[in-house]
Amino acid sequence: MPTPGRPGSTPRTKVRRLAEKAVTDRAALYAVLDAGLVAHVSVSDDAGQPYVVPVAYARQDDQVLFHGSTGSRLFRRLAGGEPTCLTVTLLDGLVLARSTFESSMHYRSAMVLGVATKVNGPAKLVALQTVTDHLLPGRWAEARQPSKKELAATMVLALPLSETSVKIADGPPTDEPDDLTWPAWAGVVPMTEAFGEPVPAPDLQHPYPVPDYVRAWARPAAVRPTPRP
Amino acid sequence: MPTPGRPGSTPRTKVRRLAEKAVTDRAALYAVLDAGLVAHVSVSDDAGQPYVVPVAYARQDDQVLFHGSTGSRLFRRLAGGEPTCLTVTLLDGLVLARSTFESSMHYRSAMVLGVATKVNGPAKLVALQTVTDHLLPGRWAEARQPSKKELAATMVLALPLSETSVKIADGPPTDEPDDLTWPAWAGVVPMTEAFGEPVPAPDLQHPYPVPDYVRAWARPAAVRPTPRP
Repeated sequence: MPTPGRPGSTPRTKVRRLAEKAVTDRAALYAVLDAGLVAHVSVSDDAGQPYVVPVAYARQDDQVLFHGSTGSRLFRRLAGGEPTCLTVTLLDGLVLARSTFESSMHYRSAMVLGVATKVNGPAKLVALQTVTDHLLPGRWAEARQPSKKELAATMVLALPLSETSVKIADGPPTDEPDDLTWPAWAGVVPMTEAFGEPVPAPDLQHPYPVPDYVRAWARPAAVRPTPRP
Repeated sequence: MPTPGRPGSTPRTKVRRLAEKAVTDRAALYAVLDAGLVAHVSVSDDAGQPYVVPVAYARQDDQVLFHGSTGSRLFRRLAGGEPTCLTVTLLDGLVLARSTFESSMHYRSAMVLGVATKVNGPAKLVALQTVTDHLLPGRWAEARQPSKKELAATMVLALPLSETSVKIADGPPTDEPDDLTWPAWAGVVPMTEAFGEPVPAPDLQHPYPVPDYVRAWARPAAVRPTPRP
């Protein structure tokens, strides 16, 4: 695996547009990747048509892990060494400037460029646990873990965090000085993800209560802090 | 613009993996695109390295509109006719099956393949209003609308909905029959986006109240219904 660089440290990851939103420390990269659940990954078909596919993922040290079916043509292309990009974007709010031009969003976005490789052997089960632990913390120990057949049907890919960039948009609207007297409210409407009340499977065989680890996922429908590192 | 087809109606948009999640009517496509705020768009650099970039967007009839800076190399490549893919994914919940293999997510995802074209002339302002109306309904009339200079600095791209696919994952966990007696809770934990309390800009010149149209955005932190069409 190449030595992980700082986010934005290569010519093709240096943030040029809205460069004031670029963040270059690895802690910020980890924080964005660890806060997301779904990434969007690019992969092309034989004719060069790109596809952008949502995947569940997790960060493990200096790589991102994600999985799919061994039967997926797109996953096979990724495993075959096609250069890819994996992007995670978290939407944190709507920014209402006085001008529509300066109106925007609060977001945190991490982009990873590189080539994914298949995870095989004992590391594969560890990788699947890592993804489950990220998406469904606490579930691995209680669920029925993968059979050999299920493991064989699953492709796990690892993308190193060797070339990355991070952008964080936060803070109040930045209107032009001439716009400050525009007669309208301006500000930020925060957004967050919230968990609803768990819905038991209709075919539950016993009235198992909702596990404590599931209850613990509930985040208040308040704003997660997005400190600028 | 090519005649819009039904989602999944071409060989390269026919859903092969988890085909039972494919949806093929245009109303479902519109519903997913109209519910999202951020899309992920693919674009490559001169060396063929793909990037996946988050963009604010809106659907207008049978096209998706999104905008960026005229100075953006990636936007210029898209405007130059590079084939692209735009994907919108809405995360609706976490699915806890008894087996980790069947554990998954509730989501709605729409994918649009094609070539984007620049929107120019009077349609450009209409397109910007369409995007603002989608992201910040009610705001256009109250905000300071784009100046000629701002318009000139903005590139608006339109991607036709001629080749699309839609996937919707919903419903209870689908465990194998042998797993139904596994001694654990199983079910779905719904997720939704919620708006927090609006935060006024610190440089507001008057104590304008939060506009009614902003208050109207607040969705309850309950689950949005995701009816299967």
